[in-house]
This record gives sequence, structure tokens and C-alpha cells, in this order.
Amino acid sequence: MMHVDDIETPALLIEAEILDRNLRAMAGYCGNHNLALRPHTKTHKIPEIARMQIKYGAPGITVAKVSEAEVMADGGIDDIVIVYPIWGESKWKRVAELAKRIRVAVAMDSPEIAEAISRSAQEAGVEVGIRLEFDTGFGRCGLPIESSSVAIARQILELPNLRWDGISFYPGHIMGDHAIREQDIAVENERLDRLYALLNAAGIPCPVVSGGNTPAAFESHRFHGVTEIRPGTYVFNDRNTVDSEAATYNDCAATVLTTVVSTSVAHRAIIDAGSKMLSGDSLLSGERRHYGYVQNRPDMILEDLSEEHGHLRLYEGAQARIGDRLRVIPNHICPCINLQDHVYLVSGEHVLKRWKVAARGKVN
Amino acid sequence: MMHVDDIETPALLIEAEILDRNLRAMAGYCGNHNLALRPHTKTHKIPEIARMQIKYGAPGITVAKVSEAEVMADGGIDDIVIVYPIWGESKWKRVAELAKRIRVAVAMDSPEIAEAISRSAQEAGVEVGIRLEFDTGFGRCGLPIESSSVAIARQILELPNLRWDGISFYPGHIMGDHAIREQDIAVENERLDRLYALLNAAGIPCPVVSGGNTPAAFESHRFHGVTEIRPGTYVFNDRNTVDSEAATYNDCAATVLTTVVSTSVAHRAIIDAGSKMLSGDSLLSGERRHYGYVQNRPDMILEDLSEEHGHLRLYEGAQARIGDRLRVIPNHICPCINLQDHVYLVSGEHVLKRWKVAARGKVN
Repeated sequence: MMHVDDIETPALLIEAEILDRNLRAMAGYCGNHNLALRPHTKTHKIPEIARMQIKYGAPGITVAKVSEAEVMADGGIDDIVIVYPIWGESKWKRVAELAKRIRVAVAMDSPEIAEAISRSAQEAGVEVGIRLEFDTGFGRCGLPIESSSVAIARQILELPNLRWDGISFYPGHIMGDHAIREQDIAVENERLDRLYALLNAAGIPCPVVSGGNTPAAFESHRFHGVTEIRPGTYVFNDRNTVDSEAATYNDCAATVLTTVVSTSVAHRAIIDAGSKMLSGDSLLSGERRHYGYVQNRPDMILEDLSEEHGHLRLYEGAQARIGDRLRVIPNHICPCINLQDHVYLVSGEHVLKRWKVAARGKVN
Repeated sequence: MMHVDDIETPALLIEAEILDRNLRAMAGYCGNHNLALRPHTKTHKIPEIARMQIKYGAPGITVAKVSEAEVMADGGIDDIVIVYPIWGESKWKRVAELAKRIRVAVAMDSPEIAEAISRSAQEAGVEVGIRLEFDTGFGRCGLPIESSSVAIARQILELPNLRWDGISFYPGHIMGDHAIREQDIAVENERLDRLYALLNAAGIPCPVVSGGNTPAAFESHRFHGVTEIRPGTYVFNDRNTVDSEAATYNDCAATVLTTVVSTSVAHRAIIDAGSKMLSGDSLLSGERRHYGYVQNRPDMILEDLSEEHGHLRLYEGAQARIGDRLRVIPNHICPCINLQDHVYLVSGEHVLKRWKVAARGKVN
């Protein structure tokens, strides 16, 4: 069996036991609260992990791009929601093609896109699910909670070859620590109640109400009316998740294995993992400093990144020798995964598998 | 001929005329000042562009990784310097293998790495060039300018199967505006003079003195003793280059073609290029705000990025309709290129070629 020491650095390692524990914990939580778990696979982009999620009870998965859906369908997943406003003739055609072989739905927020998908579904003779996206406070996509939006929902409900699944929202703004989240959830519930009142008054059903992100995932049952959640990061966790108190460093399954390659500059050591390996994403909240957490080394911090260099600052007395191997938990695991062609599934010092990141770089 | 409108977004476009002009300008400058141009190909990662650089007079190229050197050698480049402290038995072997078919040199800053490369070169029966890296102020890699470092140079000079090329430094700290640069160059020259004095006193020759970055590239002749420069970004330029006054937006050859996919939130428009397309890198200097420059649209700014969403803030009166196509100049083109499987070479609205980014994702 291959040993971790035989892996060329830098490389991304996934701890099999932690991954499995994370998958089971979220599946268990959703089971206990009667929530459908439709994980966002943008975090891992690996069909093998998507299949594990299905095995643990997820009815289907979430992706952001048609090309990601194609890869996941090829990988054996047969129920996929594309939570992204898809624009472009060729993409609408590809969605309809996909609906010939698996169950597909799309979340969007404009009549233009709904009409286009209805048209391509008609041409292909298929049905595509539709979820209407509402903005509950993140301010990115989603219709406002107003009666004008209900008129759009009505319009979409009448389009042919679309299956009305319900509504969708993304609470990306709910990610602070516990005290901040308590306030945010209360505000979110007021907004959701207002939305349900508008939809009910217009006689629009909501078989699915899809929300959820990783920081607030284990409190999803407290959001009014939610039937499904779409967390992504929980499979691996990262420094952002720990920072938002949704996990501890012991729950982080993904680490970058890296080597010290230079110690020439005083109070510094340079590792062979820079932003090309870790991504340059800063933390989402707090002081937003540093670029990853160095495991078992409280004597150093990852202060800065160049593309190919991680800049460690060494505290007084820290020992870092050229050739030393370290493991770093990234700030944000999703873009980090998107930089890898392959990852290594490990159990302690043993390499179990090398997985291809099959949905990496799928931008269309 | 394919039209730009036929390209699915998001996509990276390279304007052929601007690329050509940038290549010729740097080659011309280096020719005028008798500087060898050894461009860092991390910016483009495309063998076709490396061959253009050679055609315009570069004696060879620079890369950061052994795997990048392998791709570029496969692409017809026969003189490559790996400017990175390479660590690992398999990598040292690969360097020696590479030296069997092309001219290879390595820049490093430790006797351990020099000894390891000497050993693998002996085993393979080849010669590998060595350049010793000095730190002139950036504080990343490089030996300090002290007599202890001269002792290391002596030690390396005596190792078998190594060709002593000379010294190397990276003035990554020289990137501010004109006034800041003037001061920085003066300080840099004091340091370089001190280094030359130490090396001369020890009788250590410097056939090559390699420096240079893009922000200060056209002032490289003012750095004392420099014989070669390694700029990378100049081929495309980006918002960082413009910010450092080394180029204008008219000199930016690479743009991300993107589509407005949502306009549901007031004063906002969402485009289909987020950090997965543009990279999340903030600007290197100044206020470090915003994530790219939207061409021909002074009525909007790219205020924030999610992975798949660019968040445009619209000024009063701005028109953004769903389906509109925009072009964005990234903050930092190097990590942006590393996210692309392919790029499109265009001339105005015509697509000339689709190039594979052959050295993308080469981390080892």
C-alpha cells in the first residue's frame, strides 16, 4: 500500500474517517429533522463522494453548472438540481438533453430563463423541474419578497414542459458566530413568513422549500418551512467553517500536504503550497488574516501566499527545516479542490485511493 | 470563422494584436539594453506563446515547477530555468531526465538542494545549471547578502555535474507607483553593489545576474549588473499592472467574456464569472478593492465575487439586462489562466484559435 511519504508535494489529502463521519453526521441530522439533504457538490467535484452522499440518504445533489451536472450524471447520479441562472442557447439545449437521462431541475429568478428552458424542454420532449429563487437577505440572486415576484411565479407556473418544484433561497449571509446567527435566523424567519403569506394568498404551492448552507446547516430545522438543504462544505470543512463555529479543526477532512523548501530568510520558512494550491481566498469573516491553519504547529502561521510559495512566519524558537512536511487546512476548501486534478484519500499514513476531481474547472 | 458571440461564457479571450504588441515591446526593450529576456511562462502556461517569445528573441524561458518544464520541453522549448527551490527525490530525478533532452538550470538557495541535484545529475550523466538565489528585499526565498552566503556559493561551485550560471534575485517588492519605485531602485542598487563586492572579493564569477518582474520591467537596465530579466505578466497585463503604472487598460490582452445572468436584486447585476473564473486575488497594492475592471462600462464595478457569481454594483442609471455580454480584465491574470482548460485567441470579433493551457494545474 502506498504511504503518504511517497506522495509528491504539494498534494491534497482527504482523511477517509473524517469524511465518512461528516457525511453521516449531516445525513443523520437531516433524517432526524425530516429535511431532504441535497448536498452542493461544488465542494468536492468528485462523483465517488456524490455517490457516498446518495448512499447515506441524499435523494439527489446540487451543482452550479450544466457541465458539472453532466459529469455527475456520467458518474451515476440520477437526480440533480442546477442552482444557477443558466443563460445561453447551447446550455438550455444541454439541460434538456440531460433531462432525457436523469431527473433535472433548475433554480432561477427570471421569466426569460424559465421561458427559454421551457422552450428547449418542449423541443426535446422532456420535463425540467423549476425552482424560483428568492432573495432573503444575501443580495446576490433571487427575486425580492414582493407581490410583483408572485406575478412572475404565476407566469412561470403556466409554462409548458416545466415541473413546478417550489422555491429556493440561499442564506449566504448567515455565517457569523452563534450570537450573530441567532439574530440572523430570527430576521430570516420573518422574511420567509412574509414570502409564504404572499405565495399562499396567490394559491401557489411550495412542494419544495430549499435553503441551507454549511455554517448554519445544523440549525436548518429552525428556518420556517424549509424542506430541503443544500450544504456543500460540510463534507470536508475548512478554516471558514471552524471560524463560524460550525466545526472544529478535528472535523476538517481535507489538508494540503506540503514541504518546506526554503529557510533562508530569518523568521520565515517557505512551503511549496501557494495560492495555486490553496487558492488566495481570505477568510469570509473576522480579521480575514492568514491563508490556512498549519496542523500541529502552533509555532508558525501561514502569513502570506505567492502563487507557488506559502510564506510561514516562525515564532521565536520554531523549528522548520528544509524538507519538513506539514499539513495545512485551507481557508476555503471549494476553490482549493477546483485547483486539483487529483486528490488522495488517506487513512492515517496509508493512501487508500487517488480520486480524479472529475468536475474540476467546469465553468460552462 | 467562429464569432466571439458563439463562445459559451464564461471564457478567457486573448486579443492577438495586443499580445503581439506586448511581446514585441518587451523584446525590443531588452534588445536595446542588451538584457537577455527569459520570460516567466507561469503567466500564460501555453507552449504556443512560449514559442512566440523565443521567436521574438528570448534565449529561453522561466518556469516554477518541474512539471511545467516538462510541458514546455514537450512544446518545443529547449532552454528552461526552473526558478524554484525543488525538493524531493523524484523531482531531482526528473530534472536530470529533462537535462538529457534540453538545457536546464535551477535557481535555489540551499546547499541541500544543490547537493541533491548534483547527485541526480551525476547518476544520469548530465549537467544541470545552477543559479544561487539572493534576497534583495522581498523576504521570500534567497540567501542574505552576507559573507556566510558566499561560503555557500563556494561550496556549490565545487559540486560535480553542476554548471555555475551565476545569481538570481526577485524584486517582488518593487511594484508601487513611479515615486515609490524610484526610492526602491536606489535601495536595491545599494544591496546589489554590496552583493557583487562580496562575490568579487571571493573570486566568484557571475556570468548571469537574473532579476526583473513586470511592474519594474522597463526600468530593468537601471538595476546594477543585471544581465537577464524574467517578467511574466507583461504578455497579457492585468489590473495589477495597470495599478502599478506599468501598462494601461489598452495594453491588457486577456479579458474574461461573461454574461449577465441575474438582475433581480436592486442596484446589482450578477455575471457568470466568479472566483472560479477570475481567481479571488485582490489587488496587490492600493485600496485592494474590487475584482476586475469591466471594459467600456464606467457605470458599474465588480464589487465582489462568489465562486460562480460576479457581483456588479450598478451606479445610478446603469443599464444591465440579463443576457448582456461584458468583458472583464482580471486583477491578476496568472491565477486566472491557471483556472482555464482553454483560452480563445481573438482578433476583434473573430476567433482565431483555441489554445489548450497545457501547463495548467502543474503543481509538482
